[in-house]
Amino acid sequence: MQIDRLIRSIGACGNPSALGLDTRLEFVPESFARPHLEAGGPAEAVRAFNFALLDGLKDLIPCVKVQAAYYELMGLPGLACMRDTVEEARRLDYVVILDAKRGDIGATASAYSGAYLASDAPLAADFLTVNPYLGSDGVVPFVDDCRTTGRGIFVLVKTSNPSSGEFQDLVTEGGEPLYQRVGAKAAEWGAFLVGTEGYSSVGAVVGATYPEQGALLRRRMPHTFFLLPGYGAQGASAEGLAGCFDAFGGGAVVAASRSLICAHKKAGTDDFVSAARDEALRMRDELKRALAGPGRLS
Amino acid sequence: MQIDRLIRSIGACGNPSALGLDTRLEFVPESFARPHLEAGGPAEAVRAFNFALLDGLKDLIPCVKVQAAYYELMGLPGLACMRDTVEEARRLDYVVILDAKRGDIGATASAYSGAYLASDAPLAADFLTVNPYLGSDGVVPFVDDCRTTGRGIFVLVKTSNPSSGEFQDLVTEGGEPLYQRVGAKAAEWGAFLVGTEGYSSVGAVVGATYPEQGALLRRRMPHTFFLLPGYGAQGASAEGLAGCFDAFGGGAVVAASRSLICAHKKAGTDDFVSAARDEALRMRDELKRALAGPGRLS
Repeated sequence: MQIDRLIRSIGACGNPSALGLDTRLEFVPESFARPHLEAGGPAEAVRAFNFALLDGLKDLIPCVKVQAAYYELMGLPGLACMRDTVEEARRLDYVVILDAKRGDIGATASAYSGAYLASDAPLAADFLTVNPYLGSDGVVPFVDDCRTTGRGIFVLVKTSNPSSGEFQDLVTEGGEPLYQRVGAKAAEWGAFLVGTEGYSSVGAVVGATYPEQGALLRRRMPHTFFLLPGYGAQGASAEGLAGCFDAFGGGAVVAASRSLICAHKKAGTDDFVSAARDEALRMRDELKRALAGPGRLS
Repeated sequence: MQIDRLIRSIGACGNPSALGLDTRLEFVPESFARPHLEAGGPAEAVRAFNFALLDGLKDLIPCVKVQAAYYELMGLPGLACMRDTVEEARRLDYVVILDAKRGDIGATASAYSGAYLASDAPLAADFLTVNPYLGSDGVVPFVDDCRTTGRGIFVLVKTSNPSSGEFQDLVTEGGEPLYQRVGAKAAEWGAFLVGTEGYSSVGAVVGATYPEQGALLRRRMPHTFFLLPGYGAQGASAEGLAGCFDAFGGGAVVAASRSLICAHKKAGTDDFVSAARDEALRMRDELKRALAGPGRLS
């Protein structure tokens, strides 16, 4: 199961980070981009940038999150770049999360799952993010493929953005906010897919920007692995994240994109791989310190 | 504005139907598919099938809904087929809705909007369906592009599937179910984008399978145009739909996919264009009868 592989890879690296490849052409240093732009346009420059980062960070970071929107923005060449990036990351043994937030009903959800999670998926990733607004019909087809292939999903539960509370925090009959109801359903959808490491193939997206809600969900969803976006550029701190991890400092992976892939801009260099490595090490050590804090077993 | 164009096209055709191109290879008659399969594989067969239907129905149906999932399922050739289908439909003057249910936060939502709705969008459609679970941050970037380009979105409010009530019908503080809160927000997002025909560029997806909820939303959202899926194969009747239309028989478009694109299977023929035309006429007349019923002005 990919969830077990993810947990073991995090352990082997000693680093619960995911490299967020939300790559835009303007992030790529001009000197690096130029020959690729001439040879194949923006998608070629992004592909080369991604490949260099993947190669340069493979000993430090166990997991990659690819944000579909930035590739769709480049049209068909961008989608080819997305597929190639995912394939290269898998070839290098990263665990790959495709952050595409898909969701539709019945047969259509099956088609999305067939595209990304089925054994013969043409755009296969190890994990896919899924939007739960349509209810079980919109999620179970993905779960069915997870059962067959060992791949996984992360269901949006409490997202990291400022207005995530607009609907997700609405208190529903019985007194629970919507995000907790969705969280409970996510745990239910994944209940029969718990791997040997204690976590299910059905995970949850929990915004690192909402540490209290994250800590509450952590207590209520002991077998649900969390994907935590919002670290770095969105303002979540390592300390705020600690409550989203289990008592052993496990159970979650922290996605960071701009802070890693744009580290060279802050550092004032074109050597984006070295700058990303420095930032990856800083982030790893910050997370380690936070997870070793009071109340932690390790 | 595309919403005005949609309304006028429906008027000109006398038919508030949308052709749902949720095309799968198995829907394409074998005799028709064979040469295309040999020449270019499944995506080529689907492309030819879609093009034949678009050409054959253009005097009868004003609008096309393309379901992204079935094209993503075919990988990159499928995505090229999707782009070509959308472009061909626009060339033939259909109003084109890309049903991709996208949604993400801030900059990422802007990237999706840049892919599908911006003036230089590489995969441009006239309308895009959008998932509201992430709140205003996840929708407003699309609305901003609608303002600039005159294109539009349909926000998922009450979906047509059996489990849509799982979250959407949850009663929230104040007594309203979630879908009504989402509906109110959709009206708010679109309040400043109402065109000359009285409807906003920000529409709503309302499942034709839930006529009571649809009628309630219709009364509460007088300037929100509805996209009504669920007719035909999903079991919604024309009578049940009537309440989703305004007093003049306007304000909504009914999407039908399998009942149209698989009509030849039911009719026992390979002539899928003629079978789809017969079904389109039957559907148009059924909708006309339902919309001319008691309480209707026309």
